[in-house]
Parts: sequence; structure tokens; C-alpha cells
Amino acid sequence: MPRWLFLFCWTPLLFAQTDEIRTLLKNSEAAWNRGDLAAFASDYADSPETTFIGREITRGGTQAILERYRRNYPNREAMGRLAFSEIEIRTLAPDVALATGKYELKRTVAAGGDTSGRFTLVLRKSAAGWKIIHDHSS
Amino acid sequence: MPRWLFLFCWTPLLFAQTDEIRTLLKNSEAAWNRGDLAAFASDYADSPETTFIGREITRGGTQAILERYRRNYPNREAMGRLAFSEIEIRTLAPDVALATGKYELKRTVAAGGDTSGRFTLVLRKSAAGWKIIHDHSS
Repeated sequence: MPRWLFLFCWTPLLFAQTDEIRTLLKNSEAAWNRGDLAAFASDYADSPETTFIGREITRGGTQAILERYRRNYPNREAMGRLAFSEIEIRTLAPDVALATGKYELKRTVAAGGDTSGRFTLVLRKSAAGWKIIHDHSS
Repeated sequence: MPRWLFLFCWTPLLFAQTDEIRTLLKNSEAAWNRGDLAAFASDYADSPETTFIGREITRGGTQAILERYRRNYPNREAMGRLAFSEIEIRTLAPDVALATGKYELKRTVAAGGDTSGRFTLVLRKSAAGWKIIHDHSS
């Protein structure tokens, strides 16, 4: 297949994938804001190879990720209100994408106060849809 | 081609790629430790789409990355002595890889003292070899 034809076929697929990941992030934000950490953690690949770099590194599937979130955000007040912004998605292969963005957490002073940072997500598409295989948040 | 044959052909290639990236990181560490920031920055893809998330986000090719490093590490004392550890490399596609690890910088107190953190690198293989297209260090 000539390269221009390959690109012609490929480009709409890339846009569709970007949309799928934007939807994932929107749903993820909504899950957090209704206090549903289990739904939030379900976006991570349920594999021992999944990694999360925060202050330290967490390894493991959705249960390990969920426990990490539960430790750091023990109640609704600590969770606050989450908003993602400056989201950029790069499709690196038909089943691999890189998403970066900013997160902001609005919280009462008693719950730790507002906080914000940036995240890097590496996602892989499986039968279950796009899943985060690596998260680096700081 | 049957799946087992595909995996059979694929596995040695994955190992070779992992080795190439380990070599890149070793050379990168050596470049830093001889004070050669230009060589260090040359491991980044020279593209406006290259991103570096540190305290804030830097966009651009090797020149933008180099300037960021020069601002943050204006002299040999500030650069200190760099060591990478806990390096893990995952090949996500024939030309895409994810590398994570720990960095440690040994410095005099006057130069800012020791510091350490973790990095996430997304690399892409081009005609010029593996290049970092995204770095998140914290």
C-alpha cells in the first residue's frame, strides 16, 4: 500500500482513538468527583506490570492502584473536586497512546488545601478498551 | 504468520531494543558526568512536539531542552554527579518504548545538595536511532 494511502486510512483512526481517550479522561474525572475510586482505578490495566509513579512507585493491577488512592485520599473531603486541563494525546501505535495534562484538586484547607500538578499516562488498547499501563503524576 | 512464529521472531528484537535503550541511558549518564549537556540533550527528538515535564512543561527540540537544562544546571557544581538506577524498559511497539527509573544527583551543599527522583521516558525509534519524545521527571 503506498504511503499516502496508508496515511489516508490511518488518520481517521488516530482521531477516533484520541476521542476515546478524551472520553476515558472525562469519565475518570466524573468518577472521582462522585467519590467512586473503584471506577477511577478501573481505567488502569489490571496487570502486575502496571506502574504508578507518584512520590514513590506503585506496581500492580487495579487493586494495588485502588489501595494507593484509598491511602492517599481516605474520604470525600481529601478527594476534593478534580479537574483535568491542557490535555494532549499522541497516538504512538494503533494500540499505544501517550496522554499528558494538568490536574487540579480543589479542597478545603482542613482537607489539605488545593493542589495541582501534571500527569503523563501511557495507555494501551486491549479487548477491554484503552487502559493506563503507566502513570507518572507530580 | 502464526502467532507463535510472530512471537518467536519478535522476542529477540524486543531484547535488542531494550539493550539499545540501556546503552542510550548509560551514554546519557556519562555525558552528564563529563559536563556535556549538548550530548545529553541530543537524546531528545529534535521536534516541536517533544515535551519535558519537570516543575513546568517545556516544549520543543533539542535546543529548547538544552536551554532548560542550562538554566537549571548553570555549571558543573550544580550538575553534580548523576546516577540512574532501577531502570525498566517496556517495548510497546517496534518503534516505541517506555523507560522508567530513578535518578540521583550527588552535589555539594553549596551547589544545592543531593537530590533524587524518578523519571518516565517515552522513546521513539527514528533513522537517527532511539530518541526521547517525552520526559516526565519528578
